[in-house]
Amino acid sequence: MTETGEDIRVRSPADDSPEDIYAEDGSIRTDFRALVGAAIADRDLLFLRQHVARLHESELGDLIEALQPDQRIALVRLLGDDFDMTALTEVDEAIRLQIVEHLPNAQIAAAIGELDSDDAVYILEDLDHEDREEILAQLPFTERVRLRRALDYPESSAGRRMQTEFVAVPPFWTVGQTIDYMRDEADLPESFSQIFVIDPTFKLLGTVDLDRILRTKRLEKIEAIMRETSHPIPAEMDQEEAAQVFEQYDLLSAAVVDENGRLVGVLTIDDVVDVIQEEAEEDLMRLGGVGDEELSDSVREASRSRIPWLLVNLLTAFLAASVISLFEATIEEIVALAILMPIVAGMGGNAGSQTMTVTVRALATRDLDIHNAWRVVRREAGVGLLNGVVFGMLIGVIAGFWFQDVNIGGIIATAMLINMFAAAVGGILIPLLLDKVGADPAVSSAVFVTAVTDITGFFAFLGLATWWFSVH
Amino acid sequence: MTETGEDIRVRSPADDSPEDIYAEDGSIRTDFRALVGAAIADRDLLFLRQHVARLHESELGDLIEALQPDQRIALVRLLGDDFDMTALTEVDEAIRLQIVEHLPNAQIAAAIGELDSDDAVYILEDLDHEDREEILAQLPFTERVRLRRALDYPESSAGRRMQTEFVAVPPFWTVGQTIDYMRDEADLPESFSQIFVIDPTFKLLGTVDLDRILRTKRLEKIEAIMRETSHPIPAEMDQEEAAQVFEQYDLLSAAVVDENGRLVGVLTIDDVVDVIQEEAEEDLMRLGGVGDEELSDSVREASRSRIPWLLVNLLTAFLAASVISLFEATIEEIVALAILMPIVAGMGGNAGSQTMTVTVRALATRDLDIHNAWRVVRREAGVGLLNGVVFGMLIGVIAGFWFQDVNIGGIIATAMLINMFAAAVGGILIPLLLDKVGADPAVSSAVFVTAVTDITGFFAFLGLATWWFSVH
Repeated sequence: MTETGEDIRVRSPADDSPEDIYAEDGSIRTDFRALVGAAIADRDLLFLRQHVARLHESELGDLIEALQPDQRIALVRLLGDDFDMTALTEVDEAIRLQIVEHLPNAQIAAAIGELDSDDAVYILEDLDHEDREEILAQLPFTERVRLRRALDYPESSAGRRMQTEFVAVPPFWTVGQTIDYMRDEADLPESFSQIFVIDPTFKLLGTVDLDRILRTKRLEKIEAIMRETSHPIPAEMDQEEAAQVFEQYDLLSAAVVDENGRLVGVLTIDDVVDVIQEEAEEDLMRLGGVGDEELSDSVREASRSRIPWLLVNLLTAFLAASVISLFEATIEEIVALAILMPIVAGMGGNAGSQTMTVTVRALATRDLDIHNAWRVVRREAGVGLLNGVVFGMLIGVIAGFWFQDVNIGGIIATAMLINMFAAAVGGILIPLLLDKVGADPAVSSAVFVTAVTDITGFFAFLGLATWWFSVH
Repeated sequence: MTETGEDIRVRSPADDSPEDIYAEDGSIRTDFRALVGAAIADRDLLFLRQHVARLHESELGDLIEALQPDQRIALVRLLGDDFDMTALTEVDEAIRLQIVEHLPNAQIAAAIGELDSDDAVYILEDLDHEDREEILAQLPFTERVRLRRALDYPESSAGRRMQTEFVAVPPFWTVGQTIDYMRDEADLPESFSQIFVIDPTFKLLGTVDLDRILRTKRLEKIEAIMRETSHPIPAEMDQEEAAQVFEQYDLLSAAVVDENGRLVGVLTIDDVVDVIQEEAEEDLMRLGGVGDEELSDSVREASRSRIPWLLVNLLTAFLAASVISLFEATIEEIVALAILMPIVAGMGGNAGSQTMTVTVRALATRDLDIHNAWRVVRREAGVGLLNGVVFGMLIGVIAGFWFQDVNIGGIIATAMLINMFAAAVGGILIPLLLDKVGADPAVSSAVFVTAVTDITGFFAFLGLATWWFSVH
């Protein structure tokens, strides 16, 4: 725009929307939210159609999350058919349910009919049985059959996440025939990056990427350019496993087949990215001792989801306390021990959780397996010993000076070394063993590791002190 | 295969390889690894070409990681030109460097020439300056210029991760011309899912997805079907931000442009998936108090990366110990306090880390922003109070019975309530404040939260006890 030409702006993502709806920190701009709120209150359909209905589905989702609960429902009602239901796949489950429950089933059915089947399933699967059936009953026959089939597959399976719209052609067609078919057929999926090759019984024979079609002469046969190495995903396969196949082979989309090898749908990378995100989030939340919580959960729901973990911790805390109580007499004599003992336990706990974090993550990414487990165990034991020596000496010197007692310095140094070593060994062996017996190491490792480091820490420190002062 | 037809096998991903190289737990099968090891020792090129060289790059990467260090180098040397260098992008950095350092630069240069530019950059960026320059010098001119341009962009930027091969056409071409061009042009990218529309100065005008081209008549102009909403990524943009654009708009690939809006490359979803994985891993590792560690790091490297965090924890541990020392006299009189105090601090620590985990994750996914921060803070405070009452009463009763002292039960119950509340408030406010001042909440939240819960726990419990027993 300027004369020098230097100021030519690189378009940022938000430029594509009618206006820039995001503030710098990535949240919805406060003034935009206020404008929308006012338009909802005034029932200003013109503004809403022009500035809200035209937003990208994910932008609309962000906006809905930023609105007040009653504004959300009013907005969806006001926009009616102009509201892009896909946006509901982008919001928290609690918010989605709240909106859907306030809409007449007829409006939902009409909107669902417009969606890709994977988005439709995503919205339908959370509804209660009655509402779901009522909505399905209002859909055209083929649509209904398709959605019901996807809904019949278990939750979190590839069959649930798949899109049932795809392009499939017989192997004897030419590239030219295929292109002509796509030019003439009105009912193609909204977007696709590969087509499938099937026999008359819908059995999957292969796939052809679109770029392969475009660079091939019209007369070439499809079977000549199709790839057999297409990693079909069984519909019953867990979505997490399916995501691993995508990651390993860098797929953009993959055929989903039923138990007879017949093509039933296609899984696309955008759904897989969501799965990958969810899995990573799950591991992090579980390591932190939180369940499948959402930010929109109520106090009671959040509290309930956190209590089980705290209860288990309560048990181990009392176990550790009872270890301390074994040495009541010693503590009564030397109070310095009571002052210092949390340091031994706490430092051990932190060292243990470091090792555990590395282990849990490596197990999740499959970087850790039987080929290198032994090497990693030895490494962790080495790290534990090394850091045990470093921190043992450091803490020993500080504690010795603090209490002007070389005995206490020596005792805490030795106890630190023992506990750091126990932390390292526990931090790697506990998740490995849990994984071996089929438990999720992310869920339960932390509580066992803390139990080991607390109990070892108190026992080593107080036990050593009791023994040392009894013989000297 | 059976008569009933029930046994028709759905092909699993591994069936596509010459043989099933994976065991059930996802690791390389021990017998396959042994066969490869023997073939390397015997210099059995026939076996290696047939069973190893034909593996998918990611399978080859997994195999390399499962081999001994000397076997790895021998394998790459033996296979020579038959070795797919792309596999090196699938292994740990330490292993990649080890292999590359043992190969003559001429062999690397020859192999690099075959790779997509993003894979080539991935391998080149870790090399030291001298080796890198020597390899670049042996490449053809255009290749060299392309790679150097990508390498000139900052580490972790979109420009570093982009592929410099792409298909770009002028807006006035017809669909037919475009298809003919792709049929005739030999030097196309290995795979692509969209093409770009540019002006004579390479300025980006729009993009066209391949499925759009395939469903459009030959005579239609490209400019009529191109989309302007193409979210071009500035080459200087951080890869994490670029990944967020991909996620928000469900992109498969996106144009990367320089500061003048000129097309310089394309970022594809497979690289973005890696970035998303890395980011999630980073958050998890940082919350666990571990740096950018890799499983192949040595004892010394791992130890060094973990010491800083342990040092900070040492400081807070001594701070907490000095709080205890304030109440030395009380503990000397009532040893039960020393036995019980770790329970108060520990339970608070766990409750705090639950809140902190939820907060850090919500900040990372941008689910938490100024619009809902206040609501979430109130919710967490509510959860803290509720769980404080539940666990305060529970622990109070148990402790009261254990020490047959209703005073101790009441004191610990009150201290628990206070500390659970402090944990909740600290668990949410600390990451929020760190984020506000621009620090990474994942890195440093845990240490502050633990400090808060330790100090509050000890102070509340011992302080209450001192006051109570002094007045009664």
